[in-house]
Amino acid sequence: MAAEVNILGIAGSLRKGSYNKALLRAAAELLPDAATLETFDLEGITPFNQDLENDAPGRVKEFKGKILAADAVLIATPEYNFSMPGILKNAIDWASRPSGGNAWNGKTVAVMSASTGMLGGARAQYHLRQTFISLNMRCVVQPELIVTFAAQKFDENGRLTDEATRKILQRLLKELVGLAGK
Amino acid sequence: MAAEVNILGIAGSLRKGSYNKALLRAAAELLPDAATLETFDLEGITPFNQDLENDAPGRVKEFKGKILAADAVLIATPEYNFSMPGILKNAIDWASRPSGGNAWNGKTVAVMSASTGMLGGARAQYHLRQTFISLNMRCVVQPELIVTFAAQKFDENGRLTDEATRKILQRLLKELVGLAGK
Amino acid sequence: MAAEVNILGIAGSLRKGSYNKALLRAAAELLPDAATLETFDLEGITPFNQDLENDAPGRVKEFKGKILAADAVLIATPEYNFSMPGILKNAIDWASRPSGGNAWNGKTVAVMSASTGMLGGARAQYHLRQTFISLNMRCVVQPELIVTFAAQKFDENGRLTDEATRKILQRLLKELVGLAGK
Amino acid sequence: MAAEVNILGIAGSLRKGSYNKALLRAAAELLPDAATLETFDLEGITPFNQDLENDAPGRVKEFKGKILAADAVLIATPEYNFSMPGILKNAIDWASRPSGGNAWNGKTVAVMSASTGMLGGARAQYHLRQTFISLNMRCVVQPELIVTFAAQKFDENGRLTDEATRKILQRLLKELVGLAGK
Repeated sequence: MAAEVNILGIAGSLRKGSYNKALLRAAAELLPDAATLETFDLEGITPFNQDLENDAPGRVKEFKGKILAADAVLIATPEYNFSMPGILKNAIDWASRPSGGNAWNGKTVAVMSASTGMLGGARAQYHLRQTFISLNMRCVVQPELIVTFAAQKFDENGRLTDEATRKILQRLLKELVGLAGK
Repeated sequence: MAAEVNILGIAGSLRKGSYNKALLRAAAELLPDAATLETFDLEGITPFNQDLENDAPGRVKEFKGKILAADAVLIATPEYNFSMPGILKNAIDWASRPSGGNAWNGKTVAVMSASTGMLGGARAQYHLRQTFISLNMRCVVQPELIVTFAAQKFDENGRLTDEATRKILQRLLKELVGLAGK
Repeated sequence: MAAEVNILGIAGSLRKGSYNKALLRAAAELLPDAATLETFDLEGITPFNQDLENDAPGRVKEFKGKILAADAVLIATPEYNFSMPGILKNAIDWASRPSGGNAWNGKTVAVMSASTGMLGGARAQYHLRQTFISLNMRCVVQPELIVTFAAQKFDENGRLTDEATRKILQRLLKELVGLAGK
Repeated sequence: MAAEVNILGIAGSLRKGSYNKALLRAAAELLPDAATLETFDLEGITPFNQDLENDAPGRVKEFKGKILAADAVLIATPEYNFSMPGILKNAIDWASRPSGGNAWNGKTVAVMSASTGMLGGARAQYHLRQTFISLNMRCVVQPELIVTFAAQKFDENGRLTDEATRKILQRLLKELVGLAGK
């Protein structure tokens, strides 16, 4: 019997009604049998300062612990100004330091994005993928999950209702779990 | 008589001994006659949360005021994990919001980077340039200032001593001032 | 009386029915008064080989002559495999060489793209913009013209019929001519 | 006994004295036991035209056959104008078409670059990696092999003599073979 793959889900937005938090909830609904999903909210992760990297705040230590304990990572992110949100990148930076203590090292990861606009956060995804090279993370290649015009694809309770999107998300999760299991 | 061009300098690092802060000090030394440089430290800029964007913290308001008052912007940034530091992107995100209140809109900007490694922060610069498109900022095309192996180019007091680098910085500043004056 | 701005239009596709060739025809219709547009077809531009760069084929010399004679450049390109088409990049490479003979140097440029898919060629545009830095080309920042689902926006004769897209194209041309005139 | 991994090597330059062709020769010297390397020269691959994609030239068909027969791909590329050479991208485009006939699909790949400049072709590598997503290719994450100031690292016969570079190349090949074997 194969062991379960436990996934850490991270949303790149602090907004309560975030479509990307909603994507993570949809992922929890659509998980393959062999997987579990826990999410970590980036609220409380303070700005990174290299002078303090050997004495990280408690919330950062907690975050690094969660990453280290996970078999795989699932990031749902909006796009801010044609790139990753600063708050997501800041959390990534904290967990990658100090040198030699990169918590992301060797992890399997998948990325998805939702936005109300026509490009759906795609530009944030390509920047993130470049960052994954630095972190030595193995990223699911395909499918890409890019949710354009998000307002039409979630209902008023923030539930993902668009069937085509749900199917892609299901495939993405299957790929993530398969890749992490290798 | 042409009016002075006042430049707002921003370092993408909070570290006290930052080479990028040192680059901004070198810029202050090497300014063309027709320009002034004021720097703003990103210390105290808290994580962006869209739910709070209409009620930004005082430090963010101060930052936006400085940007709006400037004729041009000069960004000196390290590269973290093959992209911009989260803290720099977070500050950019705050000042771009709310929708319609983008403080960066129409500004002229130049970018430079220093790092101790062999690529000198180049990857952060290309991500930043993509963000400038979103912000509607006019960026100096050339020269590019990419300070590789920074530890060899500054003295123990953080003064830029490398002559070739000083010359490129001087050209970059001249281009920035020329472009902002148009 | 201001001099006319003469624009060289280049499509990144050799396909006869190319939507990007059709975009250039739409540009010819929508030009500001102070501008003219001539297009150059990349058919016949052979693969670049640095060993031959000092003895370029006649078609390449003709291309370089057209670029040198133009005040501005307008590129309409599809996206192939998440980047620029090889044939477009190859033509750019030829005209940038030999070292010191970069025909693109200092030119003003605008970029637009059309594709039948949902991202409309955006990824090709960002790669092109990075190449413009190398070539020392001044690129129009905004508006971005990204024509998604192109099959719905041109009629059977390859005429751009989508009104919203025509308006953005008109703004883009106005920006290009304005920037080139400075 | 594990089967051999046969690798197809491709250089992104047609130049006879290309450092990237020399990198492929170094790879042949440093191959792990369980691997073979055959190289394909892009000479003769004509410009892609979608109107002809169902009737590709013989040289293109030969290229696609080599890709399909390989277990893994190794690309050594220079950087032209801050991106991939047009001739490399053009060959990639041909082999990805027609739709449904993408020869790259599912292949394992590694990328390396050499240039005489200070960034060593890094920018070409990141653009290539974005293209690999489109092609559904699984790319080795690390190590990155970026050969800066190449003229100092090869001897007059085009043999890679720099020990540090040889070690990284050896690690890269080991990763490629390991990943392809899974």
